[in-house]
Amino acid sequence: MKIIGEKINGTRKKVAEAIADRNVEYIQNLAVKQVEAGSTWLDVNAGTHPGREPEDLIWLIENIQAVTDTPLCLDSANPEALRLAIQKVNKTPMINSISGEPDRLEKILPIVAEHGCEVIALAMDETKIAETYEKRVEIIEKVIKATRAAGVPDEKVYVDPLAMTVATSNQSGVVACETIRALKSKYTEAHFSIGLSNISFGLPARKQINRTFLILAMQAGLDCAILDPLDQDLQAAILTSELLLGLDENCLNYLKASRKGLFE
Amino acid sequence: MKIIGEKINGTRKKVAEAIADRNVEYIQNLAVKQVEAGSTWLDVNAGTHPGREPEDLIWLIENIQAVTDTPLCLDSANPEALRLAIQKVNKTPMINSISGEPDRLEKILPIVAEHGCEVIALAMDETKIAETYEKRVEIIEKVIKATRAAGVPDEKVYVDPLAMTVATSNQSGVVACETIRALKSKYTEAHFSIGLSNISFGLPARKQINRTFLILAMQAGLDCAILDPLDQDLQAAILTSELLLGLDENCLNYLKASRKGLFE
Repeated sequence: MKIIGEKINGTRKKVAEAIADRNVEYIQNLAVKQVEAGSTWLDVNAGTHPGREPEDLIWLIENIQAVTDTPLCLDSANPEALRLAIQKVNKTPMINSISGEPDRLEKILPIVAEHGCEVIALAMDETKIAETYEKRVEIIEKVIKATRAAGVPDEKVYVDPLAMTVATSNQSGVVACETIRALKSKYTEAHFSIGLSNISFGLPARKQINRTFLILAMQAGLDCAILDPLDQDLQAAILTSELLLGLDENCLNYLKASRKGLFE
Repeated sequence: MKIIGEKINGTRKKVAEAIADRNVEYIQNLAVKQVEAGSTWLDVNAGTHPGREPEDLIWLIENIQAVTDTPLCLDSANPEALRLAIQKVNKTPMINSISGEPDRLEKILPIVAEHGCEVIALAMDETKIAETYEKRVEIIEKVIKATRAAGVPDEKVYVDPLAMTVATSNQSGVVACETIRALKSKYTEAHFSIGLSNISFGLPARKQINRTFLILAMQAGLDCAILDPLDQDLQAAILTSELLLGLDENCLNYLKASRKGLFE
């Protein structure tokens, strides 16, 4: 399971403050802790101020790279911000995200292709988010047609099936898992990633829901997630799922984590 | 999700002592607590002393029935003990278990059929436990041919796919889930049950493994389990899985459990 550390996100209040105050220590601390906790990438989202986004994103990138060489996941819907930011990264980043929206495909996919990035592909287009997995599969089929045409190999595509909150539809989790299952059998080289926390929006004990959903999605074929790597119970759920899904040879990772006290 | 409370089992040391000492209070306390925690059936296993089994089983049944009218799950491989015990039950019990072993089919299935019992059907025969789900499916196909021939409707059959410990084969959990998935599509009226705790035998933090496996098996189609209903984390996992699998209309059960503090 690959982890994209979610914490450096300018839509979170404290991170927004740290960006506004140019609080280097706060950001670098989030970066180091998430790397120590096993992140494969660090998501970097500069927040929702279009005018300031390129500058803020570059400030984040430079300060994060000063303390870690873990690659970044540039999280922006703004092609201009991405074009400027990608000049500053030390390692090829992941791009978060493209989708079936023509605008994103036209403006962000070329950046992905040019720089050889991994990319998150959301199972949505310019219309309302589809309620059935069949429709989400269709959207991703179109997106992968476009990524292939642009020269992006399937193994760099991380499909996000979209997990909306179960508070408004009790089929949300099922539809996300079915989307993964259907696409995984068709695109065997592609990866599957999810922004974990949406599934529990508006409900109590959100960590309990997120953790359980991660286990279910892993069985469906999820092999990557944007999540809080500092959540010990979530890390325990990942290792235990890998054990039970036959992905942990001789239980080595599970036993190692147990000796370190992860399950206590 | 239906729960078969596992605690009144004479292979557990304290229960064996309570049976030997005719400690009514200890047994009745286990019965009441498991019923309060939501058990649909109470498993009753008198232990492994063949000579004493019928007498011990009847003693357990009579004392349990004195404090609860929850139906029992008579857990014995001894047809004679089952024939005698079934005369003493107030409600039609579940029988645990038949399997593809000719001896069990010939001697226990007629008791099930005669009394209209639910029955657990283990995916094993007289040979070594099969390592592939295809072979387990074949065994259950034979068992269900026999239950149908005996007049037992599929909806009274609770298939146990067998979950051996992942400590000796990292495919154990996968094979169990695939067995459920394959059989569920073929026998849409049958149920699927599992003895939960075997999966973690020999490993540390067993509850963590059991809980995670239950979530995975529920996604595959498990709708019943023999487990410890007093384990709050396990109950939380069941409710959260039902929420995410689309089985909890308007999140009502989840929200109710949250208000009662189950997730704290």
